[in-house]
Parts: sequence; C-alpha cells; structure tokens
Amino acid sequence: MSIEADVRRRAPRTESVGLHPTLPAEDYYAPEVFEIERERIFFRHWLCVGREEAIPNPGDYVVRDVVGESVLILRDRSNAIRAFYNVCRHRGSRLCSKPAGNLPGVIQCPYHAWTYTLEGNLVGTPNVSEADGLDRSEYPLHPVAVDRWDGFVFVNLSPEPAPLREQLGSDATDFARYRLGTLRVGHRVESVVEANWKILVENYCECLHCPTVHPELVDLVPTFKRGVIVEEDGGPGVRLRKGATTWTRTGRSNVPPFPWLPEEDRSLYHGMAIFPNVLVDLLPDVVRTEVLWPLGPERTLAVREWLFDPDAIARPDFDATDIIEFHDLVDGQDVAVCENAQKGVRSRAYRHGVYPPQDRFVYEFNERYRRARGPG
Amino acid sequence: MSIEADVRRRAPRTESVGLHPTLPAEDYYAPEVFEIERERIFFRHWLCVGREEAIPNPGDYVVRDVVGESVLILRDRSNAIRAFYNVCRHRGSRLCSKPAGNLPGVIQCPYHAWTYTLEGNLVGTPNVSEADGLDRSEYPLHPVAVDRWDGFVFVNLSPEPAPLREQLGSDATDFARYRLGTLRVGHRVESVVEANWKILVENYCECLHCPTVHPELVDLVPTFKRGVIVEEDGGPGVRLRKGATTWTRTGRSNVPPFPWLPEEDRSLYHGMAIFPNVLVDLLPDVVRTEVLWPLGPERTLAVREWLFDPDAIARPDFDATDIIEFHDLVDGQDVAVCENAQKGVRSRAYRHGVYPPQDRFVYEFNERYRRARGPG
Amino acid sequence: MSIEADVRRRAPRTESVGLHPTLPAEDYYAPEVFEIERERIFFRHWLCVGREEAIPNPGDYVVRDVVGESVLILRDRSNAIRAFYNVCRHRGSRLCSKPAGNLPGVIQCPYHAWTYTLEGNLVGTPNVSEADGLDRSEYPLHPVAVDRWDGFVFVNLSPEPAPLREQLGSDATDFARYRLGTLRVGHRVESVVEANWKILVENYCECLHCPTVHPELVDLVPTFKRGVIVEEDGGPGVRLRKGATTWTRTGRSNVPPFPWLPEEDRSLYHGMAIFPNVLVDLLPDVVRTEVLWPLGPERTLAVREWLFDPDAIARPDFDATDIIEFHDLVDGQDVAVCENAQKGVRSRAYRHGVYPPQDRFVYEFNERYRRARGPG
Repeated sequence: MSIEADVRRRAPRTESVGLHPTLPAEDYYAPEVFEIERERIFFRHWLCVGREEAIPNPGDYVVRDVVGESVLILRDRSNAIRAFYNVCRHRGSRLCSKPAGNLPGVIQCPYHAWTYTLEGNLVGTPNVSEADGLDRSEYPLHPVAVDRWDGFVFVNLSPEPAPLREQLGSDATDFARYRLGTLRVGHRVESVVEANWKILVENYCECLHCPTVHPELVDLVPTFKRGVIVEEDGGPGVRLRKGATTWTRTGRSNVPPFPWLPEEDRSLYHGMAIFPNVLVDLLPDVVRTEVLWPLGPERTLAVREWLFDPDAIARPDFDATDIIEFHDLVDGQDVAVCENAQKGVRSRAYRHGVYPPQDRFVYEFNERYRRARGPG
Repeated sequence: MSIEADVRRRAPRTESVGLHPTLPAEDYYAPEVFEIERERIFFRHWLCVGREEAIPNPGDYVVRDVVGESVLILRDRSNAIRAFYNVCRHRGSRLCSKPAGNLPGVIQCPYHAWTYTLEGNLVGTPNVSEADGLDRSEYPLHPVAVDRWDGFVFVNLSPEPAPLREQLGSDATDFARYRLGTLRVGHRVESVVEANWKILVENYCECLHCPTVHPELVDLVPTFKRGVIVEEDGGPGVRLRKGATTWTRTGRSNVPPFPWLPEEDRSLYHGMAIFPNVLVDLLPDVVRTEVLWPLGPERTLAVREWLFDPDAIARPDFDATDIIEFHDLVDGQDVAVCENAQKGVRSRAYRHGVYPPQDRFVYEFNERYRRARGPG
Repeated sequence: MSIEADVRRRAPRTESVGLHPTLPAEDYYAPEVFEIERERIFFRHWLCVGREEAIPNPGDYVVRDVVGESVLILRDRSNAIRAFYNVCRHRGSRLCSKPAGNLPGVIQCPYHAWTYTLEGNLVGTPNVSEADGLDRSEYPLHPVAVDRWDGFVFVNLSPEPAPLREQLGSDATDFARYRLGTLRVGHRVESVVEANWKILVENYCECLHCPTVHPELVDLVPTFKRGVIVEEDGGPGVRLRKGATTWTRTGRSNVPPFPWLPEEDRSLYHGMAIFPNVLVDLLPDVVRTEVLWPLGPERTLAVREWLFDPDAIARPDFDATDIIEFHDLVDGQDVAVCENAQKGVRSRAYRHGVYPPQDRFVYEFNERYRRARGPG
C-alpha cells in the first residue's frame, strides 16, 4: 500500500474512521490466532524472500525459513528460479542445511543420497533400482510457487496461488520511476524483535508516535512532527525539511541520488506497506526494505536491506554509513516501543484499544488483515 | 492465620483430623489448575505488594507483577495510594517500565504520549483533539482496588472485592502489640524457588520436618524439636530456649527488642500465615515477612523483607547480619526440601499423600484453599 | 530382534514389502503421540536400566529417569534386586536425589525422615506414632517390577507386566555363545540427540545410508557397502573385510577376542535391536549396547556402554581407545543425519516417506511399534 497513493485515490474523505476499536488483544499473543495466521495469511500470500541477485547463476541457492517451513530457492539449469520444500521424499530428511551455496547440477540428500535435478525430478536412488518397484517419477520434490517483481523474489506455499500481481495491486507500479529492479543490496541486517508482527506493521502505519519516539526524524520531516504520516491530500509525497535530500542526521549524504529520479522526488520520502509483511522506505539515494517474519505470536524476525544504485556502490568513495546509522537509530526507537506495547496487550485489563482518525492506516491494515484471515 | 491463636480458639480438640488424604498431586503441577488458581484465588483476594514506606510522596510509584499482571501503585496528589493496570487505553502499551520511580504529576505513555493524571484521568492526547471525536473522559486508566493494613499495601484485581479486613480476620489484630505499622524494612531479598507456591506454604505450616531439616533452628526452639509447630494448647506463643531472644546462631543479637513489646513476648516466637500467600515470623527484635508469588505451576518468587524498629535502624551500630544470616540458613534448608518435594509429586505413582495429625495446619490451609478455589 | 536370525527364519522371501508408506510424520514430533507412546510402549515394556554390576552389594542403588519417572533400583538385604518409585508416601518427596550410592540398611526421606526398609516397608515415622492412627503397613513404597537377563537389569512400570523372556523372545538366546552375563562395562557415554527415538532405531535398522554416511565403516564391512544390513540369506552373520577382527580404523585392536567365542564368529559382526529401545552390536572383542531414552518427542538420551571380557580389562596393557573412537565416529555420523531427518519430518509437505524393499527392517520395526502402540 503506497500510503500517499491511497490517500489521493480516496480523498476527499467525507467521514472519519473515527473511534473504532482496534483488533482484540488476543490477536497479538494467542497461539491459536498465530496458527490461523500461518495457514490463512502466510501460507496463502506471496512472501518476499529476498533479491534475485542472491542467486545469479545456475545451481545457486538460498534456504529460507518461511514461517516455520524450510524452503529451498534456486536457479535451475535454464536460469529460471524455482523453489521446493527442503525435504527428501524418501524419509523426510532436510536436503540443504547451509543457508546458501551452489549445487553441482543436482540436489543430493545427505542421508541416503537420493538425487534430484535442479528441476526437482528424482533421478538417483543408490542401491534401490526401479526393478525394486520404485518408480522415481512418482517422487519429485514438493514444489513451491515462485515469482518475481522488480528484483524481488516471492514464494507462495499455497498449492493454487493467485497471481503475484493481483496481490501487489498498484504497489507494483506506483514507484516504477525508482527502477527498483536495477538496485542492489548494499547492507543487510537481521534482528529479532519481541513483538507480534502486526504491532510492527501498525507502528509503520502511523506517525502519532513520531514526535514522542523519533525526535531526530521529525526534525527532518516536518509532516511527521504533526503526528501525520502523509499530508491530508496525499500530496506528491512527504517533503523533507528544506535542504534535506535523505534520512541522515544532517539530511545530506555522500551517496548521489538515483540519476534517473525525477527532480520532484529528490526532496521527498515515500512509504509503502506491501501486505502482509513488507515495508518499503523510498528516498532519493536509497530504498530500504524490511520484511517481517513471525517466529511466534510474540516474536518476529526483521530482515532489513538497503538498496542502492549499483554504480554508486561501485564508486571507490561509496560510504552509506550515515544513511544506515540513521535508519538503525529510528529502528531501535520503534523496536523499543513495540516491545513495550507487546507486554501491555497481554494484560487482562486490555481487551482492545481505540483508533483516533489519525490511526486510519492502522485501521485499514487491520481491515485488510481481517479480510485475509477470514471468519473464525 | 495466627497458628497459636487458632489452636487456643479450638482447643481442646476432641477429634484428630487423622489420616486425611492431601491435595491431589496434579494440584501442584497441572497448568490448568494454575489457571484456576490465578482466576479464583489470586485475582479474587487481597495480595500484599509491599510497604507504604516505598512510596512516601505524591508521584512515587512502584510497578508490581501480580501473578502475570503488571500493576502500577502510586501516591496521588492528595497523598492517597492508588493502583492501576499498567496499560495505556490507546493501544495497550505499558505505561511504566521501571520497577519504581517518581512521576512528574502525570503518567505519560512512552508510545504516543497519552497523558493521565495520578488519579487515572486521561488529560492529554497529542495531535488528537476532542474535535476528532475522542471523548477523553471515556478512557481513564483501568483501576485496581487498593487498601492498607499496618503499613502493608494490598491490591485486589477483582472488580468487586470484599473488604480487606474480612479477608484478614483476626490476623489484623492478633499481634497489634507488635505495632507493625511503625516498622521499616531493613533488608529485602527476592529469590525464585522451583516449587509450587502451596508446597512452600505447607512447609511453613508444619514442623514435622524441623528435626530433620533444621538442626540449628530446633536447637533454638525446643518445641520444634518434637516436630510440633506450637504447643498443644497454643500457649502464649512458642518459647525460645532459655536465654535466647531471637533467631540467630547464638540466640542473641545486637538489635534491641521492640521497646513497646510486653515482657512476656520477649522470649517468644509467633508465626502467622495470611491466606493465601503471606508468611510472617514475629520475633522480639525483628518481623520477617515472606510473600509468595506464583510464577507458574512449578515456580514461585519469594519476596522476603525484614522489618525493624526505625529507631534501631537509625543507630550507628545497627547490625542485623546475624539475624538475616540465620533466616537465610533456614530458608535455604526449606527451599531444598520443597524443590525436592516438587519433583516427587509429578510421579505417576503419587496420587496424593497423607496427613498425620501433626500436619493439621497443612490440612487446614488446604481446606481454606479448597473453599477459596471452589468446585471444578 | 537379531536381524540375521530374522532373515534366516523367514527366507526365502517370496514377496517384497515393497513401497509401503512409512509412519506418518506426526508420529515423530506430535506431543500427543509421545504421550501415547509413554503410556502404551514405555510404561508397558521391560526397559533396560543398566548392568547388575552397578549395584553389587546390599544397599547399593542407582536412580534412573525412566521416561520421566524417577525409579530407585537397589540390592536388598537378601541380595535381590528391587525397584521402587523414588517417592515418599507421606507428601511425595523424592527419596534419593543422587544418581547412585549405598543406602545404610534403610531408605530415609530427606523431608520428614520417614524410613523404609530396603524391601520397601515403612518402619519409621519420627514424631508420628501408630497411636496417632497411622498404620505404617499401609504405606509401603510403590514397587516397580524388575528382572534380569544376562547381566542386564530391566524394569517394567506396568502393574501386571508380561514376563521379560516373552518380550525378549529369541533375542534372549540367539547370542548365548557371547556369554553376555560375564562381560563388564569398560566405557560408558551419555549424549542427547535432537531427534525422536524412533528415527534413531530406524537408522540402526537399515544400511542404505551407510555408503553415504559411513565411509570408514563400509570400508570395513563390504556388505554394508552395498546398502544392505545383512546378506540375503541372513548368513552366519555379517563378515568383516579380510583380516579384520573388530570395528576400528585398522580392523584390528589390541583387545583379545572373547576366548570362549567359536572360531566362525571371530571375523563376524552381529546386530540386534531389542524392542523397543536397545541396540546391540556384537563384535569378537566387544559388545556395544545403546539404550535410547526419549526425553520428549524430539529429543532422546542415548546411553552407550562398551562391554568387555573382565579378564581383558584386568590386563595391564588393556587399551580399547581405538574401538571406542571408531564407534564414536560412526555414532557421530548417525546423529548428524538423524537430527537432520528430524528437522525435515516437521515440514507440512512431508506426510510420510516410503520404504524401498531394502528398508524392510525399518518397516518391521514400525509394524511392531504399531502393534505395541495399538489403535488410536
């Protein structure tokens, strides 16, 4: 969801979402809700597992833990990206135990050496011949749907997934001018947050907390100082303070802006929350993505990547330290309040909270969540 | 329950409680029993959260974990003690994360800066005006009942609690002559015991274990040597060995006896178990309290405080080391046997134990527990 | 189950077990399956708790954790072996907390000093006389059935166990010529494996994994190189490579072969899986036992003992280092693949695996498991 686009599409609003109740407290900690979310949200949606550039050549692979399921994502012999459950058909052994690497033309199970092509076909069963009654064609690897968008690789564990483009909607094109597909990862951080994944998404979707929690950020973004995440009419984006061109303590960096970026974006910030769990910050010189992987009802893995123009990365004087440090500062402030909120929602006194009108993007995320989760 | 008073009230006993079965084994480890206890015992009784002296001035507060619920206890602007669930009404965030401190006239949520008076009224919602439809008077902090007795602060999470005095019964007055309200904490220890809270209370309520477990203590208290916790007729209290005036290795200490204490108490020990989870040892120069907070079915936090005459504490030569060390010795012995008993009650061979007549105070604690817990 | 004997008894096979499905995936991780296994398999079968030699004299005892139940196994005053639940009848305390020791003629509870004879009769209840209504004869220790076979001690937690000999069947006599009862433990190792106990038994019951996982072992045992665990007709046993007389890197050791062993066994390996959880490797100079104790659905304690001729142990130049190191090498290889298989079976893509004909002993173990577990 590009928030500014969403605002423009809908404005002028004639009624406030007003004081709706928030999601009920147990949605943030109950193990049974978490199980429902795994099945109905995470195993039925396209989930971003990283960038294509991580597996450039045939045989290159990464292993990703997709909400508890180990998934093997690889480049096959025809250079296509494929994904499989990381499980042997013989007795269930994990096939690949390292997080990444290159497969020598086949995938071989470390237990009994059953061997599969990069396309998932079983071609070797040492000491067990087809004469023993084993028809190898009946035991291919279990496939996982895979698709790509602008350099991002998505997987979907549903046996009959809807198209990725349908899930992305206008998110797929709203920021085409940033040419996300050409960018490359310059920095990556993983960290575990002791909070439900939705608390982190909700934190991203509102700025009422900004004046209290992010003094450095509101100094850089005057709109946020007023507790709003985007101007009333959506605007062209969120304007940085005069003279600022990125998110750093000074508002400047030594990373050049994307050369292809229109002039009007060079002093703007845009945010996008791709349902269910991807958050994107677009700035003139960097795009920062955050993918939130629930590890349990009260624990989330945040995978953060900073994407830059590869030409900028290639420059000998490339130094994004101040950009990364500023995001780290803001991330740390958010993590602290989110972990604190997680503790509170467990209280028996807390049944649900309340959305003031300024929390309308939180409300809309929750509405989409409710629809995706369905009844029960 | 003052055990000696209880005995005097009932004696002469004409029948033994005899060989009743103890509580069934699962009451000491089953998670579902623990949940019932939380609801019916801990959330319906007054629970001692410490001493008034911890929050002497307006704005002073402590945060207590009350069987899994974070409760904020503070002194309001009129010097009254109040308690609230430590939860913001907006989105559930914890309000105070430090265990104690002073609030500057208001309670402000660290997330979105919603602000409450010390009386719990919502008075500030930055960037959200009442014009936005938010009627602040609808969102006060969730109150928790609070009351005091002789310097102790109690809270009750029930929405309609019975009076504290009713729960205390004669415990409130049996030892008025000790002037508990005037005493001050001279030492405090918290420790986690790997045993159900009831095993610790039961351990307090009998002395059949004393000759085996507490050789130093029975040397000091001849009654205990016979495996009884109080004389047959209750007596005036439990007499220390000749010449002893407190519980130390020598039977003496350099802390003077409470000046207001009648002569006859100056060589006596009295014990009191306040249902459900407070144990009190009254000695001529010190009153030791232990509050047992269940952390789970098989784990308990013991909060132990030693109360002294403030005039004694103020003396330059005040030294209670020998008093504290002796209690530590006895506590350690009890913890070891209680943790050992906890391991045993989980055995499938153990359905329940048996009460000899000497275990009658354990039996009576269990009967009170059964009544408080109710059927099911 | 002596695998070679099993083969001889049944051969020639006229039909393959073919491509049966394996046990369903949840049998390897579901807590509810583990509870059923505890009740119906582990608490109804004879379980090997070690060797008689560990408790040679009256009063000697060991404490064993039998799938979560603490059991006291001791030598009584008449030199008979007895076993009891390690639980006092008074209030459930553990009686013995050390893993082994010698009892001074009686068993005394550390809590209230209730005292039992080595035969389990309650004879002492300090400060509680029979006049108090306590009939001590009503409170003996809870007995556990115990029996012996060839120096091994077995317990059975069922109140009415079938005879041990019935459970052992031909296992009890197949290798009588090895005189297991005369052997002594020369080395013992305990280690925790992060896998279901059945994955470890199944790993023992097939050799399709050997060429991949155990390069050193298949070099020593040509049969294993072909992925089979025993010759087609059972044979006299599994022949070591020419010149080899035991399992070491060289195929030789400086431990002499059992003097009583027939010449034909001196270059053979025999394996035996005693249902449910004992694995035995018989070699000319050593017998290695492994007892698998489930600690939970996904965690197992492996207790491994190396048994030697006591005369060999007594020799000043006795050195079994190379024998032990080779077993450690093979064990480590098996543990790695078993832990890897455990991770895989949890995948939602894995419902069950498949048995090629070479996995027939795994299949037969699973069939015995299914019968022992019964319906539901």
